[in-house]
Amino acid sequence: MAELTHFDESGASRMVDVSGKEATARMARASGWVRMAPATLELVSDRRLAKGDVLEVARLAGIMAAKRTGELIPLCHPLGLDAVEVRLAAAPPDRVAIEATARLVGRTGVEMEALTAVSVAALTIYDMCKAVDRGMEIGPIRLEEKSGGRSGHYRRQA
Amino acid sequence: MAELTHFDESGASRMVDVSGKEATARMARASGWVRMAPATLELVSDRRLAKGDVLEVARLAGIMAAKRTGELIPLCHPLGLDAVEVRLAAAPPDRVAIEATARLVGRTGVEMEALTAVSVAALTIYDMCKAVDRGMEIGPIRLEEKSGGRSGHYRRQA
Amino acid sequence: MAELTHFDESGASRMVDVSGKEATARMARASGWVRMAPATLELVSDRRLAKGDVLEVARLAGIMAAKRTGELIPLCHPLGLDAVEVRLAAAPPDRVAIEATARLVGRTGVEMEALTAVSVAALTIYDMCKAVDRGMEIGPIRLEEKSGGRSGHYRRQA
Amino acid sequence: MAELTHFDESGASRMVDVSGKEATARMARASGWVRMAPATLELVSDRRLAKGDVLEVARLAGIMAAKRTGELIPLCHPLGLDAVEVRLAAAPPDRVAIEATARLVGRTGVEMEALTAVSVAALTIYDMCKAVDRGMEIGPIRLEEKSGGRSGHYRRQA
Amino acid sequence: MAELTHFDESGASRMVDVSGKEATARMARASGWVRMAPATLELVSDRRLAKGDVLEVARLAGIMAAKRTGELIPLCHPLGLDAVEVRLAAAPPDRVAIEATARLVGRTGVEMEALTAVSVAALTIYDMCKAVDRGMEIGPIRLEEKSGGRSGHYRRQA
Amino acid sequence: MAELTHFDESGASRMVDVSGKEATARMARASGWVRMAPATLELVSDRRLAKGDVLEVARLAGIMAAKRTGELIPLCHPLGLDAVEVRLAAAPPDRVAIEATARLVGRTGVEMEALTAVSVAALTIYDMCKAVDRGMEIGPIRLEEKSGGRSGHYRRQA
Repeated sequence: MAELTHFDESGASRMVDVSGKEATARMARASGWVRMAPATLELVSDRRLAKGDVLEVARLAGIMAAKRTGELIPLCHPLGLDAVEVRLAAAPPDRVAIEATARLVGRTGVEMEALTAVSVAALTIYDMCKAVDRGMEIGPIRLEEKSGGRSGHYRRQA
Repeated sequence: MAELTHFDESGASRMVDVSGKEATARMARASGWVRMAPATLELVSDRRLAKGDVLEVARLAGIMAAKRTGELIPLCHPLGLDAVEVRLAAAPPDRVAIEATARLVGRTGVEMEALTAVSVAALTIYDMCKAVDRGMEIGPIRLEEKSGGRSGHYRRQA
Repeated sequence: MAELTHFDESGASRMVDVSGKEATARMARASGWVRMAPATLELVSDRRLAKGDVLEVARLAGIMAAKRTGELIPLCHPLGLDAVEVRLAAAPPDRVAIEATARLVGRTGVEMEALTAVSVAALTIYDMCKAVDRGMEIGPIRLEEKSGGRSGHYRRQA
Repeated sequence: MAELTHFDESGASRMVDVSGKEATARMARASGWVRMAPATLELVSDRRLAKGDVLEVARLAGIMAAKRTGELIPLCHPLGLDAVEVRLAAAPPDRVAIEATARLVGRTGVEMEALTAVSVAALTIYDMCKAVDRGMEIGPIRLEEKSGGRSGHYRRQA
Repeated sequence: MAELTHFDESGASRMVDVSGKEATARMARASGWVRMAPATLELVSDRRLAKGDVLEVARLAGIMAAKRTGELIPLCHPLGLDAVEVRLAAAPPDRVAIEATARLVGRTGVEMEALTAVSVAALTIYDMCKAVDRGMEIGPIRLEEKSGGRSGHYRRQA
Repeated sequence: MAELTHFDESGASRMVDVSGKEATARMARASGWVRMAPATLELVSDRRLAKGDVLEVARLAGIMAAKRTGELIPLCHPLGLDAVEVRLAAAPPDRVAIEATARLVGRTGVEMEALTAVSVAALTIYDMCKAVDRGMEIGPIRLEEKSGGRSGHYRRQA
């Protein structure tokens, strides 16, 4: 039966023991969106054509946050990521699309790293555009794909 | 005309100078959601009635993350928050509602702190339930209210 | 002859080289106490029966601190822990007992991680109860057991 | 009646709102001990006469940890400390004495900063001597004195 | 007579007490260089004309590091910076010039924040170009200007 | 042809994928200098003969910073270092010499860790002496030697 593995039999939270798991090649890919006023998206896109680049700042913020996932999520294992990529693209008229991919040869999955990269990239876009648009919305953020480990390949249904 | 204040006139990113601003009482409130399978929400709710409590772990994660907002968001000012509250509630049949409020007497707003608290609380829920439900979705995350500073009181339109 | 391995032959501090050591399954268990007024312990125990839970907050603080041991202890190796558990229990009339267990398949022991988890859990109890009891005392904190690595199994004498 | 201020009326944990408090000069002094085999203390003392210095490494670790108290203790306010001092002294035949003092002009007390400095200094001594003495004990750690803020001057009874 | 303020009268290191100092507007400006092969500088410059931008990544790294100066430099006060700017420019044929400016209304100077921003921006350039040029050199890094506080305005002699 | 591996084919920054690389024994050694007034160097040297020790504080700062390289350098992999050593020596009449060596059995090199250790040790010397000498200069900082991995042994030409 399904159970929440982050709690032991007495209900206390814990960091699940993965020392008995095999180190395998792990991958996870997550996606997210930031919805904004069309005029804000134009501003983001125009700056990009000039020199400032909201999306590049957000990309770096996402990559750096992925490395610190274990500090932010209480019961997450600290991991030494082998790779992180964050992609951002304007999706006119009113959204920015974010996708992050994390990889590791290790004993536990990297979903949280990919999801954290997307979340912090989205927050960074909010931060950089909030002076002109407070009504922006972040989400939906979700796991798109995951491979490696006992549970096999997962791909989100369209 | 509207402009992205995180870039200077040459387009280079920067942390905006707030040294000339007055220190006033600032407040920001943000909200967010995690959508999950109804069976997952039941599991969360049931554990709560027992001893384990996904929502309490998420609350703490959100509070702690708010304090580190300046480390995560590249151009955000490092702030010494005066208060953070994170509230979580099951919203049957399939969602958890999150709301965070941050306060500070200071020279710059605390929207990012409230939004970061909501985001990391949501990620923590995902982490603790992912073994039983990979299809969860985070969002929409948004600013609900903000006061203090030159720009006056903001309240999101319903 | 016994020597302090954190100093080289000239007396300079250093992080000991473990690259030649074998990666083996390591475990360490540490314990500690917080002594408080009986009335404070009752308050802690009562809140637990309601919804607030000092011990659960302390448990999470301990788990999260264990992951950052390498940042806090200058000559400690940064480690990717495989598991951390922190247990807390009221020990009437006037103490809370804390026990932490850390595990890793790696090149160096995890005593410091277990001891750090206990210490920060104890500090968190102090923080949450200090408004009603400034006279609390933390300790003794000590290593109870350790296994893995060249030095074999250690168990503290009663 | 006494109550645990880190929980709101519904029992949820929170970071207490200090934005209405006055900024006053705050001071806190905490103490702690590390008990070890007499031979270990001699080794510590001898290295000191040479060039390596366990106590100096511990002092720095304590000072640096004090600055990060708000990251470690979940409901602690992030503070910009104005001063930290950590003093260590061999107390023959079998103990090292630690004392830390923290100061801040601010809206909340600095007890946790002083206690964290003592705790991490003690852990660092343990780390540096553990190769020769696993039986060391940390504690008691306690608040010795505190001033500033509404609650007035506190001094521990001998 | 001149003395090193980071040590007390017994020679122990400490974080200097600034609680008695006045909060004034502080500014510090630091500069630094990275010397590289002319072909490497061309590669940096060319990528910039395309989409990748070594200098923009370095700028963000410098800004983010400035915010964490108090964590890196043991006896530095933790500060809530009001502004940081990092400027980078190719200086053909073989150097990149870096300049960072930090500002704060506070009780202590921000030289270390400006110098840390320059240093980490330089390290980031090294990291991003090291696959093509291991012989790069960082420096000289120095303080160019400083104002605010008791010691008055300082400007480096040419 | 040479290319900057930190950018993908579209010019976006990324953390290079090392999951396919072999884990081998890696070593890197970096060096750096701090130039100061002869009177400042004398002060540093004299304190050393007494009890305070600028160079020991700088050594620890360098060791601790090496462990956090992955947090500071945006596209650097987070690594679990196996060893770090930092050596400092007065080089009369007017310089301090710094050398750092990092080691790891892993999938990627440790140059950045050695260079970061040198940089932060140098910044710490600046911090501790700046009250008496603002004109100090840091640099040149450079990679002296590197081994392990596909690219073979590198040793800087004199």
